This record gives sequence, structure tokens and C-alpha cells, in this order.
Amino acid sequence: MPRKEGESFSEWFDYVIREAEVYDYGRYPVKGMGVWMPYGYAIRKNIVEMIRRLLDSTGHEEILLPILIPEDLLSKEAEHIKGFSDQVYWVTHGGLEELDVKLALRPTSETSLTYMESFWLSSYKELPKKYYQIVSIFRYETKATRPMIRLREVTTFKEAHTAHDSFEDAERQVFEAVEIYSRIFDELGIPYIVSKRPDWDKFAGALYTIAFDTILPDGKVLQIGTVHHLGQSFSKALNAKIHLQNGENDYIWQTSYGLSDRVVASVIAIHGDDKGLILPFKIAPLKTVIVPIPSKDEQDNKKILDYSRKIAEQLSECGISARVDDRPDYTPGWKYNYWELKGVPVRIEVGLREVNSNTITVVRRDSRERINIGIEDICLNIKKIGEQLDVDLQCKAKRKFNESVTRASTIDEAKKVLSEKKGIAEIPWCGRITCGKRMEEEVDARFLGSPLKINVEEISKHKCPVCGSEAKTIARLAKTY
Amino acid sequence: MPRKEGESFSEWFDYVIREAEVYDYGRYPVKGMGVWMPYGYAIRKNIVEMIRRLLDSTGHEEILLPILIPEDLLSKEAEHIKGFSDQVYWVTHGGLEELDVKLALRPTSETSLTYMESFWLSSYKELPKKYYQIVSIFRYETKATRPMIRLREVTTFKEAHTAHDSFEDAERQVFEAVEIYSRIFDELGIPYIVSKRPDWDKFAGALYTIAFDTILPDGKVLQIGTVHHLGQSFSKALNAKIHLQNGENDYIWQTSYGLSDRVVASVIAIHGDDKGLILPFKIAPLKTVIVPIPSKDEQDNKKILDYSRKIAEQLSECGISARVDDRPDYTPGWKYNYWELKGVPVRIEVGLREVNSNTITVVRRDSRERINIGIEDICLNIKKIGEQLDVDLQCKAKRKFNESVTRASTIDEAKKVLSEKKGIAEIPWCGRITCGKRMEEEVDARFLGSPLKINVEEISKHKCPVCGSEAKTIARLAKTY
Repeated sequence: MPRKEGESFSEWFDYVIREAEVYDYGRYPVKGMGVWMPYGYAIRKNIVEMIRRLLDSTGHEEILLPILIPEDLLSKEAEHIKGFSDQVYWVTHGGLEELDVKLALRPTSETSLTYMESFWLSSYKELPKKYYQIVSIFRYETKATRPMIRLREVTTFKEAHTAHDSFEDAERQVFEAVEIYSRIFDELGIPYIVSKRPDWDKFAGALYTIAFDTILPDGKVLQIGTVHHLGQSFSKALNAKIHLQNGENDYIWQTSYGLSDRVVASVIAIHGDDKGLILPFKIAPLKTVIVPIPSKDEQDNKKILDYSRKIAEQLSECGISARVDDRPDYTPGWKYNYWELKGVPVRIEVGLREVNSNTITVVRRDSRERINIGIEDICLNIKKIGEQLDVDLQCKAKRKFNESVTRASTIDEAKKVLSEKKGIAEIPWCGRITCGKRMEEEVDARFLGSPLKINVEEISKHKCPVCGSEAKTIARLAKTY
Repeated sequence: MPRKEGESFSEWFDYVIREAEVYDYGRYPVKGMGVWMPYGYAIRKNIVEMIRRLLDSTGHEEILLPILIPEDLLSKEAEHIKGFSDQVYWVTHGGLEELDVKLALRPTSETSLTYMESFWLSSYKELPKKYYQIVSIFRYETKATRPMIRLREVTTFKEAHTAHDSFEDAERQVFEAVEIYSRIFDELGIPYIVSKRPDWDKFAGALYTIAFDTILPDGKVLQIGTVHHLGQSFSKALNAKIHLQNGENDYIWQTSYGLSDRVVASVIAIHGDDKGLILPFKIAPLKTVIVPIPSKDEQDNKKILDYSRKIAEQLSECGISARVDDRPDYTPGWKYNYWELKGVPVRIEVGLREVNSNTITVVRRDSRERINIGIEDICLNIKKIGEQLDVDLQCKAKRKFNESVTRASTIDEAKKVLSEKKGIAEIPWCGRITCGKRMEEEVDARFLGSPLKINVEEISKHKCPVCGSEAKTIARLAKTY
């Protein structure tokens, strides 16, 4: 992936998002905030639309809540405000006046939505209810900020909030959310592992948190999605009650789950190479670029250009975005580099040979495989090539990911894994918090949690390396972002 | 429009947006901020998508800038900050720390975008460049706030910003923007008048401002869109320079233009009636609702329901959203009211008669016209009915609008027009600021400005009622929101 000897992943990442005009970071004069440029915005939009489709088709309803939450509302749920209080941006003045009540830039919307639900929901008959919004959230991060990965304004926060009439139905929703998120990451070819976060690292206010983690090319783990069972903490704090079927009243049971700009960051980080971005065909804003190879003869050149434009038209008509790069001042080689940096999945080269034989030469961005194909059924063929590219991207990324998850049976082994091979170390664990925290400390890594399901018989043959008693599950540890 | 004797337009408006579950206002605990509920969000989304399509197809590129603008950046352009300083919300704290530099919640993005353009643009070859974003903006309004019309968080601000290499090209863009906005309002059936705002009421920092105004059912005028020629004020203040074709360097010339939630508010306010919303077919989230008329016979009921579902399927397949309201606990009459309130443009009634004759009964939301039609070519027919409904809505609204624009030749006449008939009064005007301001004062109304084009010969036959000299243009005055 490095473009040159010794380049780090993060130097590469900063380079590609800037040079491919995805996200302008570091020049905007507020730390931790960047600008989505047109090309990056188009990538983000296609990913967001895909997420929207999956949410809409599973009964989620989109809404839009205000960005500002009054201090007293945000503070209603005690654990929640404790978890967020040192990360909240506060609006204190309107014009020259000081406000009566400080207003928080939302760090997340559990409190404000639950407050509205206390008006909106009244009966079990209306449940389950699934809301979501895609918005900016704000965290006054004290850790080092990083473009698209650790921001003070997270511009692409998809937060879903659901309401249920029982603990069990909320738990069912947790697993539905895990399914939906798996589907989203699969579609994008992002490999992941799903862990139940340890109790000391759950969302502020939740009963428990399930998280999706991926591994970036530097071997460090990035949390890319979380799903929370909120129980009744927020509904009790905000008095959101409904009538149950049995005639009684009860507080609603809730879940919430979120994705962020990190989804876009992962697509870029995981599929890219030393030439730049590699975008999956299904979300690429420009799926094909057509580069005419000039000839010495003016009349031939005209033929080549006409032919290229005809191809572009045909592709556009069947919904495959296409553009002829006919800029006169640049060589084909220069154009190849330009579009490779931008990650356009399919390049089509058109020279005199292609025109005369009624063919095109197709070059895949990922494998650089070249194929000469006829132009009949061009839509069908390009679509097929694009779909295969997406499958190959996913397989390649999954293989690499799986190789980066390593079993270890002792603390030392785990330390060695994480310092040499990086990725994720899996260690047998008795399940006790004290032993978990000890592992975290001694391995000097973040405790990601445990698998949702475990083969008890198999794991019980192993011992917890801290206390030596029988293992009941697996602990996952990693160096993280 | 009033549902009952003596109801005001604004009571009607508040009632329909609440009861039709469009926008929850007044319960969210921050003044001037409301919540888009699922149904309202879906309306807003369809309108926003239409706007997006028109902007994308005219070469506008979507971006996303941070919400926060540092005080020093916002203050660079002197007129601009003077215009906005008493309306800006300020973030002063992150967590418990006081920030070094106060951060403004953007009231608009001229300063932050021009700052980025100083990095992004370098040559006349890249121009014209047209950016836009659809975002929340914030104004600490001191006037009375109103749902969707005067908000402190404007959640649907579409702001476009363009860069050019000359005054003339920016002016050309101003007229392109006027064309695009006309198209948007025409699509939605919103009538409007285009005026050049007087010099004392232009956008803070602009050379001049052109505005779109409509008239709401209470006869008051609502500004629904503005287009600004910014000249070089912002580019000089923020040092955004380019190379010109002649080899010299110059500051870029800019325009900006904006739409807001008021577009959605106008659709609701202008087309609605005493039964609730009337949504244009082209932007209705639910275009058709199918209401089965139960029969006494169980077997007949099953037939009716099956038939209804088949119709819904057929419509959905051809892209016309349809839903069978098969809720057992409600009468057809109740359902009619329910969907009329929500403004669903086409209702389809299915009883035994329809099943046996292979027909449907279609009822238009606007005219309540009933037609019985066969189910062959159902998609074609419903689409045609929907298109006709949109045309009729637009014509009806335009007629009413035109009747509300009245010529007056004296101050007294203008006063009378505005107090009795409301709407807009047009008065001959010599074009002098002093006379214009005097009119504004004496008529006690807002000076909307003058037409972009005027028949000089015709108008010069009239006299300015203030100074008595020859009129050069027309002054428009109105009571406004």
C-alpha cells in the first residue's frame, strides 16, 4: 500500500483523501472538522443511500431532530451525562445575549428522541417503532483527531432508535440491527468481527453494547458500528410510557445503533492500494472512465472520439455512469494515473484497434487485468465485470482480515501477536471482570469483548491465563484507534 | 381554508402540520426548533431530491462544510458580520474548558466556503464553479418564531455558492439561478414574484439581491428564495484569487443563492384546504391510498381485499406508491378523513361493485372529483390523473396569486389595498432611495423591491406618488412574514 519506502498507513490515507479530493482536512480552521469535497461527497452519498435503502426496507422511519439539546434534558439520564459531560460542546450565547439554559451540540440523540417519544407513543399497538436520522454529531475529543476517523464534528452519523414493549422484543431488535449492519458491511466488502463489549466499556446508559470492529492496513482495529440494548434507562428518566396489552402501563424498552464516517473511511482504507482509492463498483460515483488513445491521423482521432462517446452514452443509458476523458493536454498514461488515484473501478481504453474491431479494452482497477471484449451486450458485460470486482475486493479483504485474527493462550503470546503481527488476539477467558481488566492492562491493548456465540464445550478445554480456571468464553484484544 | 368559523390561517397551519404528523413544533424544549416526523420527513425528502436533481443537472456539485465557523473567519467580511452579529449562536465551551476562539453555528456559509475556495481554485480554467450544500443553519431570531417559517434552526437550508472570473459571468449565474428557482417553484405549483430587493434590504455583503416572494392564504407575503451577486467582497476579504486568461491575477467573483424549509411550508400552506394537506402528486410520499368498502358477506370481503391488494401491487410495480388501508377497526368514512388530512392526492375506493365490474373508483383529493375507470392501463390512468391534479393545483394557486397583486397609484391606494385585499401592492416609483423608504414608512409595509425587467415607455407615463417626478420602475410593497 505505501507509495514509497517507509510511508505509514496514516500518511497514505491522508494523501489519498486529499489528492483524490475526497475530504479536505487540516486546512479548515477548526480542529477535528473537515470538508467533504464534491467527489468525496458523491462517494459518501452512495454509501448513505445504500444504508438508507436497507433501513427503509426493514421498517425504519427517517426523522430529523434539532442539533441543540438543552442542558437539563441532556442531563436527565445520569450515566449518560456522566459518560458524555467532558465531550460536549456548549452554546452559551445567542447574539450578544447569554442564554438562560446552555444548549449542547448533540453528542447523540437518545435523550431528545426519548423526550419526543413520550408524546408520540402511547400504546403497545404502535410498537415496535424504529426511527433513524443521518446527521452531524459533536464530540470535543481530547485524543488526537484524525480525518474521518476521530472527528469533533462527525458529519455522517446514522443513529437508529427503536421502542419496544418488552426486554425480549428490544433484544430481538438488537439482533436485527446486527443483521442489518452485517449486510451493510458485506455490501461494501468491509470485513468485521462482532463482539459484545465488556461491561466496563459499554455505551453510557446502556444495558449492553455490541460492536463491529474491522482492522485497518496498519494492523490497528477500528470500531465501525455499535448496537446498544438501552433497557428502560432513558424511558424512565424521560417518562416515556405506553399502555401494554395486559392493561398496565410501562416504560418503553429501547435500543439504539449507530454508524459514522468511519464506514466511508474503511472502504477507502481497506480496498485502496499504492495507486490510490479502489472503489467498489456498486458505490463508485463514476463507475467507468473511457480513455481515448490518440492516433497520428486526425480523421482516425475523430473516429476514436466518436466511438468513445457512443460507448459512454450506451453505458449511461443503462445506468452505468461513464465519462470520456477527452482532455487534449494530457497523455493516456497521465489519465490512467489520475483515475486510478480516484479509484474508478473500470477503465475502458479505446484506440484505433478497438474502433476497427468493434471492441473495447477493459482494465480493472483492482487487479489491473486487461480484457478485450466486443461491444454487443456492453452493459451486461461491464456490469458483470463490476460485480466480480466487488466480490474479489470483499474476498481479498476477508482473507487478510481472517489472517489477522490470532489465537493466543497466554498473556505473553497475546503481547507478541499484537506487537509483531498486529490485528486481534483471541485469548481464552473465564469471563470475570477482574481477569478481563487484568488482561487489558498486561497486554496493554483494548479489550474488544467476546463473541456473541461460543462453543462452550470447545472453549472449556482451555484455561483463563490470568486465574487459571476453566475458560467460558474468548477475550479479544487489540491495539485500536 | 379555515376548518371552523373564525379560525386564522396560522391556527390552521399549526393544526395541519401537527395532526398530519409533518413537523412537531412547540413541544421540543428549545424555542424556534422543531422535529421532522416520519411523514413530514418523507415530504421534505421528495422536495429536496427534486431540488437536488435540478441542481445536479445544471452542473452544481454537492459538498458539506462544518457547522462551526470560528469568530475570526466569520468576521473577515465587515458588512457580513455587521448584518449577522446579533443573530449568531456562539459555542464557547468544549466539555468544561473554555475555547480559545468562539465558534459560531453557521448562519450561512459564504465565509467558510470562500476560505476553502482560496485553496481549491487557482485558474479561470476551473470556472465557473458551482457548489451547494443542504444543511442546518442557525439564527438567533428575535422576532416571533413560527414553525417552518421563522426558525432558529433552519433545517433545510439549500445554499449554493458559485465562483466566476468576471462580474458579467457572475451576473449570468444570477439569472441561471433565477431560472432554476423558477423551475423548482413551478414544479411544486408555488406561485411567485421575482423582485430586485432595494439596496437597503440586500444580503449582508452582496452587491445586490434578487428575491422570490409568494403570498400565503392570509394575504401576507413570504420570502421563499434569494439570489445574491456577491461581487468580490468575500473573495477580497478571504484572499481567494485565481489566474485570469490574460495572465493577471484577480479575486474571484461570486454569487450565492438559498432556499429553506419555507419551500415545504409553502406547498402545505398554498395547496391545503379545510380538510388538511393537499400534496402535489409528484412529491407525495404516498401517491394513492386504497380503501376497501366492506360488504356484509365474508366471502365478498375477501374478494374486495384481494382485489385491493392486487391493485396496490400493480401500482407499486410501476413506481406509484400505494397502500391498502385494511385496518379493521375503522369505517371507510374515517379513513377518508384520515388520508385527506395527510394530503394523499389520489384515493381509490374498492367495493363489490368495482370487483365485479373490474373497475376502481378514483377520488381526487383536490377537486373531490369521482371517476369510475377500468383497471386495464391502471398505471397510465392514475399517472394521468396525478399529472392533471398537479396542473390544476398550480393553475388555481397562480390565479389566486395574480388576483392578489394590485396596482395602486397613490400611497393611500396602496394602504387600502394592503389593509383590505392584502397581497402585494405595486406603485410607480422614480427609483430614488429616499422616495422608496418614504413609501415603506408611509404605507407601513415592507418594500419588496422592483421587477427585474420593466417596460420603460409604459411606466414613464406614471408619476412617483412621493416626489411627483416621472416613474422609472415599480415598487412592490406588502405585509410580510
